[in-house]
Amino acid sequence: MIQPNIPETDRPRVVIVGGGFAGINLAKALKHAPVQVVLLDRNNYHLFQPLLYQVATAGLEPDSIAFPLRGIFKRQKNFHFRMAEVKSVNSADNILHTNIGDIKYQYLVIATGSNTNFFGNKVIEEHAIGMKSLIEAVQIRNYVLKQFEESLLMNDESAIRPKLNFVMVGGGPTGVELAGAFAELRKYILPKDYPELPLHLMNIYLIEAGPKVLASMSEKSSQKTLEGLEFLGVKVLTGVAVKDYDGHTLTLSNGDTIVTQSLLWSAGVKGFPIKGIPEDITLPNGRVIVDGVNRMQGSSNIFVIGDIAQQVTDERFPKGYPMVAQVAMQQGKQLGKNIANELKGKPLQPFKYTDLGSMATIGRNRAVAEFSGIRLSGYIAWIAWMIVHLLNLMGFRNKLVVFINWFYRYFTYDRGTRIIIKRGAANIVKLGQTVNQTDPLIVP
Amino acid sequence: MIQPNIPETDRPRVVIVGGGFAGINLAKALKHAPVQVVLLDRNNYHLFQPLLYQVATAGLEPDSIAFPLRGIFKRQKNFHFRMAEVKSVNSADNILHTNIGDIKYQYLVIATGSNTNFFGNKVIEEHAIGMKSLIEAVQIRNYVLKQFEESLLMNDESAIRPKLNFVMVGGGPTGVELAGAFAELRKYILPKDYPELPLHLMNIYLIEAGPKVLASMSEKSSQKTLEGLEFLGVKVLTGVAVKDYDGHTLTLSNGDTIVTQSLLWSAGVKGFPIKGIPEDITLPNGRVIVDGVNRMQGSSNIFVIGDIAQQVTDERFPKGYPMVAQVAMQQGKQLGKNIANELKGKPLQPFKYTDLGSMATIGRNRAVAEFSGIRLSGYIAWIAWMIVHLLNLMGFRNKLVVFINWFYRYFTYDRGTRIIIKRGAANIVKLGQTVNQTDPLIVP
Repeated sequence: MIQPNIPETDRPRVVIVGGGFAGINLAKALKHAPVQVVLLDRNNYHLFQPLLYQVATAGLEPDSIAFPLRGIFKRQKNFHFRMAEVKSVNSADNILHTNIGDIKYQYLVIATGSNTNFFGNKVIEEHAIGMKSLIEAVQIRNYVLKQFEESLLMNDESAIRPKLNFVMVGGGPTGVELAGAFAELRKYILPKDYPELPLHLMNIYLIEAGPKVLASMSEKSSQKTLEGLEFLGVKVLTGVAVKDYDGHTLTLSNGDTIVTQSLLWSAGVKGFPIKGIPEDITLPNGRVIVDGVNRMQGSSNIFVIGDIAQQVTDERFPKGYPMVAQVAMQQGKQLGKNIANELKGKPLQPFKYTDLGSMATIGRNRAVAEFSGIRLSGYIAWIAWMIVHLLNLMGFRNKLVVFINWFYRYFTYDRGTRIIIKRGAANIVKLGQTVNQTDPLIVP
Repeated sequence: MIQPNIPETDRPRVVIVGGGFAGINLAKALKHAPVQVVLLDRNNYHLFQPLLYQVATAGLEPDSIAFPLRGIFKRQKNFHFRMAEVKSVNSADNILHTNIGDIKYQYLVIATGSNTNFFGNKVIEEHAIGMKSLIEAVQIRNYVLKQFEESLLMNDESAIRPKLNFVMVGGGPTGVELAGAFAELRKYILPKDYPELPLHLMNIYLIEAGPKVLASMSEKSSQKTLEGLEFLGVKVLTGVAVKDYDGHTLTLSNGDTIVTQSLLWSAGVKGFPIKGIPEDITLPNGRVIVDGVNRMQGSSNIFVIGDIAQQVTDERFPKGYPMVAQVAMQQGKQLGKNIANELKGKPLQPFKYTDLGSMATIGRNRAVAEFSGIRLSGYIAWIAWMIVHLLNLMGFRNKLVVFINWFYRYFTYDRGTRIIIKRGAANIVKLGQTVNQTDPLIVP
């Protein structure tokens, strides 16, 4: 058994790859454990992904949903952070290869999360826009605002339509929340910002291959969501899949086509395991098979938590847990306790997910929420959604800034952050396109 | 005389180039004038430049000092905005050439502001970092945070020194405020964020070629500023100029050298006039000569306002007005009245600058301010500085978010926005450098 008073550098080192919900909850849970915690991430911040869609739709500033990792752990003495890109793992020698050098570990925890899943469709991957990182969300904001600026310069309907048609693919919470936010942009902001724009040409589509939106929730919540979206003018298409997309024309599985330059893809995510992890324990969706305590199959000191872990020991979830923040947070906390247990020679406790419920917001005063048998919708669910998200947001400053933004938006119907931060932002029209310009301000 | 009730499209068109302090104040002043206002800017937002240094030093989010131009004017019926890059002006035919096409004007107002002046030194221009745009400020923030992350990976003092030496050139308000903010980062944030960093190797230099900092203020305020900066540990060097810089070693006019990878240049600004403006009325610093009503010399319908206008009709300012926000705002307002006057056949009123005073903040509880004979310093000046900046910031939401940030920072000594938003952020060390790495976490 290891004594807590031995110098930190001689303690077993736990290397955590990824500062998402799983990684930071694990690192926190190890605060008093006799270990040295080393957290690696490509970015120097923890990202609150559930609010990414608000950054993409100009409702929140990027900085308010990102929290510097060093700031989170500034009072945790056994914590060390390095900004690094992991290249591969050599599990035989317990060494992690990274772009800043090789790092030895006694325990390795892979918490690298997930990224957009285009299901192998390279054509769609090339033209569609994913939304899993802060940079992607800012790019969506820049891109969408530019579509409006450019539309103003066109008179030809066939040139405007693809710029004003926005298509979300995937009827999960991200797709629903994005579609709702776009519909509110159209309703409250764009008529004031662009009085000259033919907004009747703007359409917001939500495409879901399955039979209903928010499939993980109850029939009733799903129905309420559909009604809410349709009330806001979103064209919801269920039971159709995306077949092809060339950056201009989207072809659906039923043969219909939509012209759009904005295809936002939130139809699925997949894990991206680190090189060196045996392929025979990696599923096609990138998840890595673990046992009941999140230990990687075939290893004694490598653990996998969060989106990338495939844990099928819970009979309620024979296909593995859903790839959501709640699972990641709980697995991180539990693994922290388990590593401490192992060092004390105590048995490890198997992980069991406690479903705290799920919720999605559709728009102003309109959300759905379900937890422990209670089903809410409308205003109450919307308030609950806001409270839950505010409470889970890291840091007092971020909570306050987000609250201010929401409060301000509620009463003014405004979205303050619709700015394009981009070098050469004004190069909005490619030269070949200028022929079409019939902006009344421009000399023909 | 033009009737206000003729359709807007038949009214004389005033084209304003630049949405800075001059441009937006002019556009607002023309709200009830019988004209069509067309504002062009490369960006879709108005930038509150006086707080740029706080974005660069992780004190404020970029979005809180930028306000969408369409939002500012959403209730002004005669206002039209286009995001565009101006190429040149054909004053003989009253046509402005832009990247979105040609725009005719009856009145053209050039309010393009100023950019960093490297005084023709190409070597310095290549390696130094200017701070006039939001993108530059975000880049400084990214860059500075990366210096700290990289320093952690080095053990060799000669490799760390240039990364931890920060040099501001120019002892005006921007240089003073930047240096003070860096000193506070070192004092309050870095020891917590980077307990392993040898912060005694970190130096903050402020270099001013003239005999004193804040030369435009009184001897006493200048002295107070110097004392304040030195109290915070800033090394202030006056009476020395920058001679050379190769990206690593800075050579001063007195022969001294400083190793630094961060040279922040705020030693001067210059105007960048639009092509087509006669060269004989353009000064070497890029300013364009105007008469007492800001009309461009030799033209009847082109006006120039703000930083780029060289107006020498005021005997108090024989070398032209200072390139500050106050002048730009007042010129914008006055020109608005004058254009309305001209359309009514009334005489134009010559512009006369009312100096409302000047101020600079050095750090927490520490600022200098001077207005109408009153001279303040310390806590009172600092409070005054904050109030003036908050009041001048566009939009209620921005005011509130900035206030929250300041309030939070005052009580927690924290800076919430120290995140690196950059693709490939983790590629922090060039391959050649990895030899030097002696991070104790890394296998040698």
